[in-house]
Amino acid sequence: MNDLSIEHGRSIDVLCLGRAGVDLYAAEENTDITEVASFKKFVGGSPANIAVSLARLGGRAAIISVVSNDGLGRYVVDYLNQQGIDIKAVRFDASGARTSLAITEMKPTEGEVVLYRNQAADLQLSMDDIQLDHIAQAKILLVSGTALSKSPSREATLLSIEHARSVNTFVVLDLDYRAYSWASEQEASLYYQIVARASNVIIGNLEEINILSTHASLEYDMQPNKLEAFLKPYFQGVAELIIVKRAEGGSLAFTKDGRCLKQGVYSVSVKKPFGAGDAFAGTLMHGLIKGLDIETCIRRGSAAAAINVSRDSCTEAMPSLTELLSFMARNEQTKFK
Amino acid sequence: MNDLSIEHGRSIDVLCLGRAGVDLYAAEENTDITEVASFKKFVGGSPANIAVSLARLGGRAAIISVVSNDGLGRYVVDYLNQQGIDIKAVRFDASGARTSLAITEMKPTEGEVVLYRNQAADLQLSMDDIQLDHIAQAKILLVSGTALSKSPSREATLLSIEHARSVNTFVVLDLDYRAYSWASEQEASLYYQIVARASNVIIGNLEEINILSTHASLEYDMQPNKLEAFLKPYFQGVAELIIVKRAEGGSLAFTKDGRCLKQGVYSVSVKKPFGAGDAFAGTLMHGLIKGLDIETCIRRGSAAAAINVSRDSCTEAMPSLTELLSFMARNEQTKFK
Amino acid sequence: MNDLSIEHGRSIDVLCLGRAGVDLYAAEENTDITEVASFKKFVGGSPANIAVSLARLGGRAAIISVVSNDGLGRYVVDYLNQQGIDIKAVRFDASGARTSLAITEMKPTEGEVVLYRNQAADLQLSMDDIQLDHIAQAKILLVSGTALSKSPSREATLLSIEHARSVNTFVVLDLDYRAYSWASEQEASLYYQIVARASNVIIGNLEEINILSTHASLEYDMQPNKLEAFLKPYFQGVAELIIVKRAEGGSLAFTKDGRCLKQGVYSVSVKKPFGAGDAFAGTLMHGLIKGLDIETCIRRGSAAAAINVSRDSCTEAMPSLTELLSFMARNEQTKFK
Amino acid sequence: MNDLSIEHGRSIDVLCLGRAGVDLYAAEENTDITEVASFKKFVGGSPANIAVSLARLGGRAAIISVVSNDGLGRYVVDYLNQQGIDIKAVRFDASGARTSLAITEMKPTEGEVVLYRNQAADLQLSMDDIQLDHIAQAKILLVSGTALSKSPSREATLLSIEHARSVNTFVVLDLDYRAYSWASEQEASLYYQIVARASNVIIGNLEEINILSTHASLEYDMQPNKLEAFLKPYFQGVAELIIVKRAEGGSLAFTKDGRCLKQGVYSVSVKKPFGAGDAFAGTLMHGLIKGLDIETCIRRGSAAAAINVSRDSCTEAMPSLTELLSFMARNEQTKFK
Repeated sequence: MNDLSIEHGRSIDVLCLGRAGVDLYAAEENTDITEVASFKKFVGGSPANIAVSLARLGGRAAIISVVSNDGLGRYVVDYLNQQGIDIKAVRFDASGARTSLAITEMKPTEGEVVLYRNQAADLQLSMDDIQLDHIAQAKILLVSGTALSKSPSREATLLSIEHARSVNTFVVLDLDYRAYSWASEQEASLYYQIVARASNVIIGNLEEINILSTHASLEYDMQPNKLEAFLKPYFQGVAELIIVKRAEGGSLAFTKDGRCLKQGVYSVSVKKPFGAGDAFAGTLMHGLIKGLDIETCIRRGSAAAAINVSRDSCTEAMPSLTELLSFMARNEQTKFK
Repeated sequence: MNDLSIEHGRSIDVLCLGRAGVDLYAAEENTDITEVASFKKFVGGSPANIAVSLARLGGRAAIISVVSNDGLGRYVVDYLNQQGIDIKAVRFDASGARTSLAITEMKPTEGEVVLYRNQAADLQLSMDDIQLDHIAQAKILLVSGTALSKSPSREATLLSIEHARSVNTFVVLDLDYRAYSWASEQEASLYYQIVARASNVIIGNLEEINILSTHASLEYDMQPNKLEAFLKPYFQGVAELIIVKRAEGGSLAFTKDGRCLKQGVYSVSVKKPFGAGDAFAGTLMHGLIKGLDIETCIRRGSAAAAINVSRDSCTEAMPSLTELLSFMARNEQTKFK
Repeated sequence: MNDLSIEHGRSIDVLCLGRAGVDLYAAEENTDITEVASFKKFVGGSPANIAVSLARLGGRAAIISVVSNDGLGRYVVDYLNQQGIDIKAVRFDASGARTSLAITEMKPTEGEVVLYRNQAADLQLSMDDIQLDHIAQAKILLVSGTALSKSPSREATLLSIEHARSVNTFVVLDLDYRAYSWASEQEASLYYQIVARASNVIIGNLEEINILSTHASLEYDMQPNKLEAFLKPYFQGVAELIIVKRAEGGSLAFTKDGRCLKQGVYSVSVKKPFGAGDAFAGTLMHGLIKGLDIETCIRRGSAAAAINVSRDSCTEAMPSLTELLSFMARNEQTKFK
Repeated sequence: MNDLSIEHGRSIDVLCLGRAGVDLYAAEENTDITEVASFKKFVGGSPANIAVSLARLGGRAAIISVVSNDGLGRYVVDYLNQQGIDIKAVRFDASGARTSLAITEMKPTEGEVVLYRNQAADLQLSMDDIQLDHIAQAKILLVSGTALSKSPSREATLLSIEHARSVNTFVVLDLDYRAYSWASEQEASLYYQIVARASNVIIGNLEEINILSTHASLEYDMQPNKLEAFLKPYFQGVAELIIVKRAEGGSLAFTKDGRCLKQGVYSVSVKKPFGAGDAFAGTLMHGLIKGLDIETCIRRGSAAAAINVSRDSCTEAMPSLTELLSFMARNEQTKFK
C-alpha cells in the first residue's frame, strides 16, 4: 500500500512525454566506434524506454512525441505500437527536423555515444500537440526533463503540466538532465525548479538533483541528511516522493511524511550503462499504480535496471513481470553504501 | 591528348572541396528501412567519394572539409588518410555541428535514404578554412555544388574559386544539385550560374543542368542541339568542357571548340544507385590529368561508374586502375540513346 | 491601512523590471505621422514610466533594464538618474541591440505608433543581470509582462520572481500584454499564468485579464461576478489583490478576503492615451507602501492617470504628490459603470 | 562626350537599388544627442538620396526597395513619389521588419548617428522583388553595396546584376561600405569583388576601395600610381570608369583607356557630413547619361556634394540643375592634393 494521490479510475496508466528515437548499437562489443563495422537498430530515448518498460510489465502506456516523417520515424512508431503503446499523440514532422538518433559503442562504461540531435524532432513538440482530454485520461504524466531544454518543446511540456494540475493527473518528473541539451546550466536550473515544484514525484541521480539548486553550489556527493534539508521545500508544495539514485551506491527515497528509505542494488555483469534509469522509472511507476508500497516499488525498479544493463539494448532489454519476479527471487540486493 | 588548360607541375592532382561523411548501408538487401536489423558503416559524401576514386586509381587527392569532433568524425578522417588522401585541410568542429550521415536501404533503385544534415559539419566550412597556398599546389580544384547551399560554406566555396582563378588552378564543378539543401530553387540557380561561369569543367545530369537556367523553364529531357545552344554562353567565358550525364541513356560532352561527344554506358547488375557519378568524376579527372583524350576519359568514367553501382558501398567500391582496365577489356558500352 | 504582506524595512520602495526607452512624440497635434515635421524626445517604456511616477511622488525607485550603448541609451539612463531613480542595474548593451523606440502621433485616441523593437535592448536582459541582493533590498518587485515575451529576458524575469519569492519581496505584476511582442497568444497565456500564480498583486485591463485564460475563451467584457469566479484560483495561492481596469468605465479591485471594490475615473481633456496605466500603477504602489487603504490607493492612481493623459508625454507628465492631491481636491470621480 | 556603353533609348535614366528610409536630424545644431530636444523628419538612405538627386536635376529615376507597412514607410514612398520618382518597385513589408531609421546629431563632423537597422526592411528585398522587365527599361542600374550585406537582399542584388548583364543595362556600383552591416570584413571583400567585376562603373572613397582587396592589406592612403595598378584587373573585365573620392583631397578617376583624371573640391561651410557622396553619384550619372565628358560630370558631382553638405538634410538639400550651374558659376574648385 502507498498513499500517493494517484487517481485510479483512468484508462491510461502512464502518459510519457518526450523523445522517442533510434539507437544504433555497435554490433561488436568493446570496440572503438572508429573500428565498429556495423550497428544494430533499436528504438530508444528515455520516455520511449519507460513506456516500453511499462508495457512489458503489462501496464497501459501512451506517449506524446514527435518523429520525422521518414523510414526511421515510421520504424519508431511501428515498434511502439507493436509493444501495445498508445501512439495516437505521436506526430510525424515534415519540417526538416529528424528523429533523435544515438550511435553507440557497446562497452560496460564510458562507451562513446554520438548523438544526432540538431533540430531534433522531439524538441519540435508544440503546445498544439498537447491535448487536455488525453492528459485527463492518464493516471500519471511522466515528464522527461530534456523536453524542457528548448522551445517549442519547453512550452509544450509546461502546458502539459498545467493541464495535469487542472485535471488531477499525477506528475512524475524524471530529471534526465543532460547539460549538452541546454543553453546554460542556470537556464536548466531555472526551469527544473519551476517544474519540480509542480511535480508529485521527482526522480534523479545525484548530479541531476544538483540542477535543482539555483547556485549549483551543492556538493556532488551530498550526505542523506543534507539532501533531506535541500529537498524539504518541495514537500511543502505538491511533492510526495523524491528518489535520488546513487548508481552502485543504491538509492535514497524521501517521502512527504518525512521518511528516508535506503536500498542497495542488484549486481550483474554490465554490457552497457544505458537504460538502467528508464527501467527503474517504468517499473517503479508500474508498482505505484498497482498500489504497492514504495519500498517494494523501488526494489522492483532496481531489479529491472540490473536486468536491462545486462542485455544489449534498452527497449528490447526491458523485462516482463514474470522475468522481473523470477530475477528477484534468484538474486539479492547489495547493501546501501 | 587533351588541350585543357591544366597546370601540370603541381604536387596535388585534385583538391576536393565539400562534404565527407558517414554512410550506413542496410546489411539486408531489398528490405524496407523499417525492417532493416543492422547497418554497415562506410565513408561517403560526394567529394570524399571522388577523392577515394582518384586515390584508388593512383592519383594524389586532397580534401577540404569539416567533420565533427567525435568518433564518427575521426573515423572519416582516419579512413581518408589510410587511402593516401591529404587530409590536412579537414577541420574537426566542436561547435555542435555533426558529420554528414546517410542511412540507406540497399535497393537497386528508389531506396529510401534518411539524411542527417541539420547543422551539418561540412556546411560549417568557413573562409578561414581556405588557404591560397594549398589551392596553388593543386592541378584541379573540384567543387561540389552542395557546398554552395548554405553559409558559411557558400562563402568558403566562392573564395576557393576566387583563389583558384588567381593562381591558375583548374576548376571542375560537379553540380551535385540536391534541392533539399537549398532555401529555394531560384537561390540555387543564382549561385550555380555565378560559379559555373568561373569553372573550366562543368559536370551534371540533365536535371542538374536545368538549375543553370534562371527561369528553370528548360525541358527536363533536352535534345543535344538545344542543350548545346543553352550551354554556349559558358564557352564564351572560361568553360572548356561540359558533360551532361543521361543515366542509362549515356553521356554528352560539349567542348569549347564546338564538338559534341556522345557515349553509351556499361550495363551491370545494380546493387544501389549511389556512387556512379562520383566514380565517373574521379576517373574522368584522373584521365584528364594524365593527358588522355576526352573520349577515353569519359569511357573510363562510365566504366568506373558501372563497377561502383554493382558493389555494396560507394568508397570501398571504387576500382583500382587494374580493375578498371580489366573491366573495360571484358565489357562493351551500350550505344548512346 | 492595508494588510498586504509588504516587507517595510527595506531601502528600495519599488524595483521595476523591464523596458526603458525613448518616445518621440509628434510636435504637431492631431497630425498624421506622414505629415509630422518634427518629434520631441522623451524617456518612455512602461516600467520606466512607473519608476518615474514613483520618484515624482517621493518614492525610492530602482530599475532593472538594458539600453544600447549609444547616445539614446545614455540619454535614458541620464534622465532616470536625474529623477533620483537607482540605475545601477541598467546595463549598456553593445551586441547590436537597440534601445526601445516609439515614434507616435499626438492624438487623443487611435494615434499611430511606430515601434522599433527588433532585437530590443530590454529583451536582452539575461539571468546574469539579476542580482538576489538587489531584489532583497526592495519592498516591491514590479514586473512588466512584456519582459516575459522573449528569451533571454523571459528567463531573467522568471529568475527575478524566484529570487523575490526566496527573500519575501512583494511581487506586483503589471500584465502589460501586447500581442505583437509574443510568438503566439497561447505562449503568452502559458507564461502569464505561471507568473500570475507567483504574484501578490496583478494589474491589468479587461483585455489583458483574458490572457490568463488558457483557452482565451473569456468574454472580453466580463461582468464583475464572472470576473470574480475567474480570478478566484489566484487567491488560493499567493495573490492578495487583483485590479481590473475598465478605461472610462472605472476599475474593479478584488481582494484575498473576498471584497470587490468599484471606482469611477476622473474626466479630463485627453491629449494622448499613453501613460495612464503607468501613472496608475506607480501611484497605487506609492500608496500601498505608505500603508494607505486600497480604496485610497486606487483613487490616487486614477487621478494620476487622468493628469498624465491630459499632458503631452508620459514621464514628464507624472504628477508630484502636491499636484496629485491638489487635483483630487479640485475634481471628483465619475461613478463606476 | 563620353564613350561609356550606356544604352540610351530607355525610359528610365537610373534604377536605384537599396535602402530608402527616414532620417531624423537634430533640430538644434552642435548639440549632443542626449541633449537634443527635438528632431526633424526627412527621407534618407543612400540610394533614395541618389534617386532624389537625379530627379531634382530633371532625370527620370526609379527605385527598388522595401519599407515597412506603417506611417514611416508610407511617408518614404509618398515623398519619393512627390519627387517624381518611379516607386512601383517599392514593396511594403508586413513581416515585422522596419524602415531604416537614422537619428543624427547636426554637427559638421563626427556627429553621432544612432541607426535602427535590426531586421531592416530594405534588407528584406528578395529575388521575387527583382523584375527583368523593369531592369531592361533602365539605362543605368545603380547598386548600393550595402544591399549585399545580408540575405535575402544579397541574392536580390546579385540577381539584379545578372539581369542587367543579360539586357545590357549599365551597372554603376556605389561601394557604400559600412563595416557594421557585414558579418565580417572578409565576407564583405568577397562579395564586393564578385560584384565589382560585373560593374561598368565603380565609385568609392579610399577606405571603401580597400574592401576590394582580399587581404585588406592596402595602405589606406594609396598614391595614384599604386591605386592604378590595384584597379587595373577590373579594366580587363567590364569596368569602364572607377572613381576614388578622397574627401577634402579631391577625386581620382581612372578610365578603361588608361587615363587618370584628378580634381579638387568646392569649399563650403559644412553643416553635416552626410549626403555628399550621394549628391556626387546622382549628379555624375545625370551628366553621363546626358553624354557630357567625364571631367565635367565629376566637376558637377563635386559641386552638388558641396551644396548638399552646406544645407541641413540629405534629400531636401539636393540642388536643381539651375542651382547647380549657378553655384558652379560663382565658385571654383580647390586644387587636387
